[in-house]
Amino acid sequence: MATTRLLGDAEVEKIPAVKAVFDDIRATRKSDFVNNFWRGLANDPAALKRVWEQLKAVMVVDSAIDPLTKEMIYIAVSTANGCSYCIHSHTAAARAKGMTDAQHGELVSIIGLAGQTNHLVTAMQIPLDPQFEVK
Amino acid sequence: MATTRLLGDAEVEKIPAVKAVFDDIRATRKSDFVNNFWRGLANDPAALKRVWEQLKAVMVVDSAIDPLTKEMIYIAVSTANGCSYCIHSHTAAARAKGMTDAQHGELVSIIGLAGQTNHLVTAMQIPLDPQFEVK
Amino acid sequence: MATTRLLGDAEVEKIPAVKAVFDDIRATRKSDFVNNFWRGLANDPAALKRVWEQLKAVMVVDSAIDPLTKEMIYIAVSTANGCSYCIHSHTAAARAKGMTDAQHGELVSIIGLAGQTNHLVTAMQIPLDPQFEVK
Amino acid sequence: MATTRLLGDAEVEKIPAVKAVFDDIRATRKSDFVNNFWRGLANDPAALKRVWEQLKAVMVVDSAIDPLTKEMIYIAVSTANGCSYCIHSHTAAARAKGMTDAQHGELVSIIGLAGQTNHLVTAMQIPLDPQFEVK
Amino acid sequence: MATTRLLGDAEVEKIPAVKAVFDDIRATRKSDFVNNFWRGLANDPAALKRVWEQLKAVMVVDSAIDPLTKEMIYIAVSTANGCSYCIHSHTAAARAKGMTDAQHGELVSIIGLAGQTNHLVTAMQIPLDPQFEVK
Amino acid sequence: MATTRLLGDAEVEKIPAVKAVFDDIRATRKSDFVNNFWRGLANDPAALKRVWEQLKAVMVVDSAIDPLTKEMIYIAVSTANGCSYCIHSHTAAARAKGMTDAQHGELVSIIGLAGQTNHLVTAMQIPLDPQFEVK
Repeated sequence: MATTRLLGDAEVEKIPAVKAVFDDIRATRKSDFVNNFWRGLANDPAALKRVWEQLKAVMVVDSAIDPLTKEMIYIAVSTANGCSYCIHSHTAAARAKGMTDAQHGELVSIIGLAGQTNHLVTAMQIPLDPQFEVK
Repeated sequence: MATTRLLGDAEVEKIPAVKAVFDDIRATRKSDFVNNFWRGLANDPAALKRVWEQLKAVMVVDSAIDPLTKEMIYIAVSTANGCSYCIHSHTAAARAKGMTDAQHGELVSIIGLAGQTNHLVTAMQIPLDPQFEVK
Repeated sequence: MATTRLLGDAEVEKIPAVKAVFDDIRATRKSDFVNNFWRGLANDPAALKRVWEQLKAVMVVDSAIDPLTKEMIYIAVSTANGCSYCIHSHTAAARAKGMTDAQHGELVSIIGLAGQTNHLVTAMQIPLDPQFEVK
Repeated sequence: MATTRLLGDAEVEKIPAVKAVFDDIRATRKSDFVNNFWRGLANDPAALKRVWEQLKAVMVVDSAIDPLTKEMIYIAVSTANGCSYCIHSHTAAARAKGMTDAQHGELVSIIGLAGQTNHLVTAMQIPLDPQFEVK
Repeated sequence: MATTRLLGDAEVEKIPAVKAVFDDIRATRKSDFVNNFWRGLANDPAALKRVWEQLKAVMVVDSAIDPLTKEMIYIAVSTANGCSYCIHSHTAAARAKGMTDAQHGELVSIIGLAGQTNHLVTAMQIPLDPQFEVK
Repeated sequence: MATTRLLGDAEVEKIPAVKAVFDDIRATRKSDFVNNFWRGLANDPAALKRVWEQLKAVMVVDSAIDPLTKEMIYIAVSTANGCSYCIHSHTAAARAKGMTDAQHGELVSIIGLAGQTNHLVTAMQIPLDPQFEVK
């Protein structure tokens, strides 16, 4: 249950600024499916456009980090932030980009280990070694 | 300032269970430097061994995710958890494994974007699309 | 599913210390509806009273921050903490206090942006500018 | 200590894409001071521009939520996320926009109370009342 | 809905490395019930073994902190991390180890109070008193 | 560096409502030392009184959970929330109440393990077993 309405396709058709973003999402992803996140954001057309443009610039464009790694990093952040929807949607995206069961298993283990050492370091309040300072 | 003592090398020499782990850290990493995290954990030799063995199994062994990607995932979790020490130590590790400035810049952008969409999704309490369900 | 029982009205009637708080909640809010949060807390009558008195002092009393702004701040904290119940209940409270769709859209955008810059700052470990120091 | 370099003004002068954003920050804020956050982001000129444009659109433009309330919401999110730098910079911004000591005291109390009830709700796993559902 | 498959008993029977851990879980806990957490981890037999061995070493072995206190500490961390499943499973474990309603009520209050003062301290960015430094 | 002023003893003397709370803190703790947290809260005398009364009711009064266990639960929450000041102050309090090095080592291990399994469960989105439901 959302705290805001999720716009259906009929409603989207009537708001040109939203329609334009949805068209671009469909064209970019080569799929008719537009997930609920965008349907919630569509209540604020300017926000919808801002977030989508940003997501395209960071996640869609070819760049120094490969697309699957990007999705795994996204899952890692979403897990630590406890965003259930985000974990599901980006795990689906990672699988669509070829993540194997072995890679998923390892990703989960790395996230778990980081969770552990983050807590150990924080509980002990370990001070930074000078060797880690950026010159 | 730690909430526990950090064991120096002289002290480590006197505790065989700690000495054995420190020797293995040095041999595995081909470096004499043992960072403060292990010196704090060394107060509990069994915990030290457990955490180190686990870190070796997850982060050091060759596996389905490459070493640099592992470090970037680690940085992502540590950032979302706000563990300053962990961000510094794993950013140093990622650089030692070849992370370029461009890759670091992108990593930071992905983490930031995930932080944003995690918050947007949570504020709107977006319900899961059935398309994301694992069969 | 709660990890504790939620007290129904029949049970509340039998515990004077709980009944007194429920009566005050109903009188203060001018509504017969007492939400599940208080029904869970009611297992510990002293805690129920402590939390309710505090909520009255902070959220109900006229003060330097207007009631709608208070609810928006509450939603912001609850989102960053990932408390789904709290996001729902305080979004409902904010709407009851007049929050418009435009204000809700902006609130969501501010929360999202803060989520992003919080993550960017933490990933880069930006040091404090001396200009921000309180004199 | 940052995990990336902070670009000084001399360096900024040599990178037109960064220079353009810094000029806009200075013009928009009517101040010569550009804080460290932007100097870290400047390592990735496209990211710098993306984040700044977004911040302008959300925080600077006149809109349905007044400027001081926006800053208080920002402080609330940053506190729950534990971003020390962000708490300092947005508390300074809120004060510059007229936040009184009384308002700051109340803001702190609301954040504290939300932190408490978020934890209480989560520990008891309180289920959502149907009354809070968005129609 | 998990992001990975949960292995049923028939499948577990066919994977000796998983079967061995499940047998040990059942023997250690003196119960035939193996909860979903282990069924998800079982996708990666080495991770399953690592996590189970660690849980046994920390939570099962007799040690300086009694078993019920350990579970209450676990609930405290899980609440602050917002892990609903973990809160439920460890609250069940704590009750099985004798946690009374009064103790649960107090535990919830302590967690709530810590959540509050954590947020107050962070919002005010209180500097450490030298008296708290470990010598 | 705090985002608010910390009241010194001379200033406290001039504000009876603050003075009364400080006197009670000193009498309750049988110590002249009043730590910075209360000096920051003192900017808002009503908030100071509310938080102190609550802390007394939850942490000081004899009850179903012993004083040392209460402090360990407090450290656990504060660690997961990343509140450095709180970790330091409550670790000092736990030591003052008799926490041994062995107990501290175990506490750190439990917090770390919970951090790990919280992340594992969240990454895999493990669904609740019906066996954990409260009747």
